[in-house]
Amino acid sequence: MGEWGIIAALAARVPTGPLTEIGIGDDAAVLATPSGSVVAAVDLLLENRHFRLDWSPAYDIGAKAAARSLADIAAMGAVGTALLVGLAAPPALPAGWLTGLADGLAAEAARAGAGVIGGDTSRADTVTLSVTALGDLAGRPPVRRSGARPGDVVAVNDHLGASAAGLALLTAGLAYGSAADGPAAEPSPAAAYVLEAHRRPQPSYEDGPAAARLGATAMIDVSDGLLADLGHIASASGVSIDVAASALPISIGLREAARIVEAKMPRSSVTDAADTTSDTALHWVLTGGEDHALVATFPPATDLPSNWRVIGTVQSSTGHPGTGVTVDGAPYAGTGGWEHFRDS
Amino acid sequence: MGEWGIIAALAARVPTGPLTEIGIGDDAAVLATPSGSVVAAVDLLLENRHFRLDWSPAYDIGAKAAARSLADIAAMGAVGTALLVGLAAPPALPAGWLTGLADGLAAEAARAGAGVIGGDTSRADTVTLSVTALGDLAGRPPVRRSGARPGDVVAVNDHLGASAAGLALLTAGLAYGSAADGPAAEPSPAAAYVLEAHRRPQPSYEDGPAAARLGATAMIDVSDGLLADLGHIASASGVSIDVAASALPISIGLREAARIVEAKMPRSSVTDAADTTSDTALHWVLTGGEDHALVATFPPATDLPSNWRVIGTVQSSTGHPGTGVTVDGAPYAGTGGWEHFRDS
Repeated sequence: MGEWGIIAALAARVPTGPLTEIGIGDDAAVLATPSGSVVAAVDLLLENRHFRLDWSPAYDIGAKAAARSLADIAAMGAVGTALLVGLAAPPALPAGWLTGLADGLAAEAARAGAGVIGGDTSRADTVTLSVTALGDLAGRPPVRRSGARPGDVVAVNDHLGASAAGLALLTAGLAYGSAADGPAAEPSPAAAYVLEAHRRPQPSYEDGPAAARLGATAMIDVSDGLLADLGHIASASGVSIDVAASALPISIGLREAARIVEAKMPRSSVTDAADTTSDTALHWVLTGGEDHALVATFPPATDLPSNWRVIGTVQSSTGHPGTGVTVDGAPYAGTGGWEHFRDS
Repeated sequence: MGEWGIIAALAARVPTGPLTEIGIGDDAAVLATPSGSVVAAVDLLLENRHFRLDWSPAYDIGAKAAARSLADIAAMGAVGTALLVGLAAPPALPAGWLTGLADGLAAEAARAGAGVIGGDTSRADTVTLSVTALGDLAGRPPVRRSGARPGDVVAVNDHLGASAAGLALLTAGLAYGSAADGPAAEPSPAAAYVLEAHRRPQPSYEDGPAAARLGATAMIDVSDGLLADLGHIASASGVSIDVAASALPISIGLREAARIVEAKMPRSSVTDAADTTSDTALHWVLTGGEDHALVATFPPATDLPSNWRVIGTVQSSTGHPGTGVTVDGAPYAGTGGWEHFRDS
C-alpha cells in the first residue's frame, strides 16, 4: 500500500473524537483540552513479546493495544480523549490484516470515547505498535498511586486472572483441546472465555473517573498483576496492603480453565496436590497481568457501588523489606500448579 | 538494568518541563494546557531504517529522535512542551548506551523547552524508539498545510540538504576519507559538518511560533525533502508552488561534500558532467530529508526577518497531475551525480 496509502486507509477507519480540532493528515494533531490539562501515557507493543500473530487476530491486537494505554488514562481517574498510533509492519502483511488492526483500534477507542488523532507508519521485519493515549480530568485532581492511607479499603472493579489463564492455555497448546481430544477441537466455554480475555481485554474505563468522584485515594490498572500493581501503590504511598484471598472474585470460567491446565500438565513440585485447582486459579488472580481491571483504595466510609468489590485493607507500613503486599497476612509464595512447567 | 531500573535511570536524566504536573512514575503523566488545546505528533524510529548504531552515537540518536517529533510541533506554529518516549532495546546494550540516549533526548527536549513526562521500555532484538511530542499554541490558530494562497511567498528558515549529504558520505563509506587516504582519517571540515547535520539536526524550533505570529499561511518541516514537503502543502492547499533554484541556500560545506562524493563515485549516466558538483548539492537541497528546517508560505507583503529566505512563490493550481511543485518553472528531474550509484 505504501506509507501514505496505509495512513489514508487507517485514517478512514478510526473515530475522530469529539475534542479533535485537527486529526490525521497534518504535521501534528490538535486536541481541545477545555479543563486546562491533558493526561498522557505511552505503551510499546512488540510482536512475539506482547502478542503473537498466530495467537491473536489483527482486530484483537489493535483493540488490546488501545486498551492497554486507555486503561492507564482511566487509572488516573481521567476520560480517554485521543490516541496516536505508531505502526511498523512487514510489507508482506496483507492489507486486510492492517485494516483489521485499524478496526480493532477504532472499536476500542470508540468504547472509551476517544478519537485516533495521529499516527506514523514504517516498514519493519516484525510488527511494532506504539500507542499514546491522551485523556481529560474534567477539572478533578488525578488519582495517583501515592495517596493510599492506613485504614483505606482496597477494591477492584472487575474479574482478574482470566488473561493469564488464556495465555497459559495458549502457551501449553491447550487452547483448542489436547491432541488426544482430536485435531482442531472447539475450545470449551471456559477456554473460550479466558482466551477472549487474553486476546481482547475490555476495561470498564468509566469506572476510573467514577472512582475519582467516589473519593479514591490511589488507583492503578492491573497490567503487571494484582500483587505487583498493589506493590506499586504500597511503595508510592508508603503503606502496606493486605489482600483477603477469600474476598477475591474467582469466576467459574477461571476455575474451569485451571482444571483444564491441571488435568494436562505435570504437577510442579511446589504445588499442594490436595488443592491444586484452586491454587492455580488463585495464582492467576493474584499475579496475572493484562486484565486491566482497576484496583483502587478508598476511605473506609466510602459507599461503594456494587461493581467495586472490597478485597483488602491498607495498613501502616511494616517497615520490612519486600513489596509491602501480603495475602491473608503473609507474603504470597504460591506459584500455581503449572508455573514450574511454564518456566522450564 | 531491568525495566524499572532503566526507567528510573532515564527519568533522572531528563528535564521535567515547566508545565508538567505529574511526570514519569505514575500510570500516566499530567501536563498543564493553559491555552485550552494540545498539539500532538508521534514518530516511530527503527534501528537500521532510521538510524544505525555504528553510524551514530546513542546521544545523537536520542537527540535526533526528539528533534523529529518536536519539529512537527514547531511546524504547526506551536511550542513543544512534552515528550513521551517508548524504547525497546536489546538487553545486551551497555547501560552507557542507554544513558547516552537519555542524555541526547534530554538535551534536545531542553533546547525546545519541553519536558520528558512519560515512557515505556521493553526488550527487543533491535532498538526501536517511539517519540510522542506535545505542544502548545498559546491561543493562536495552528498553521496548517492547507492555507497557502496564490501570490504568497515561500520561505525557508535554515539550510537544507546537509543531512542527505552526511547520509551519502556514510552510505558510500566516504565519511572518514577513502581507503586511499589511509585508515581512520579524520573527516574533512565539510564532511564533519554534513555528518553532524545527519546525526544531530538541531531545528530552530522558535521559528515555528514566530512564523505563526508573522502570519504564515501554511508551514511544514522538511522531513521528506523540500520538494516532497512543498508537495504536501501544494496538495493540501490546492495550489502550485515554484521554487527558484538560484534563491536556495547552498552552503560552502555542502558544495565541498558534493565534491568529495563526486571525486570518488562513478558518474551516473543521467548527470550533466559539465556541472556535476552543483547538481549534486542542489539535488540534496531539493530532495534531502531530515534537516527539519521549516518551510512556510507568507502573504507577499510580509516583512520577513533575515533568518527567513524567500525561495519561491505560490501560484494557482495548474490542474495538471503531479506534485504541483516546479523548479524554475519546470518539473524537477535531477538525480544528483551519485544517485544512480546509491540506488544500485
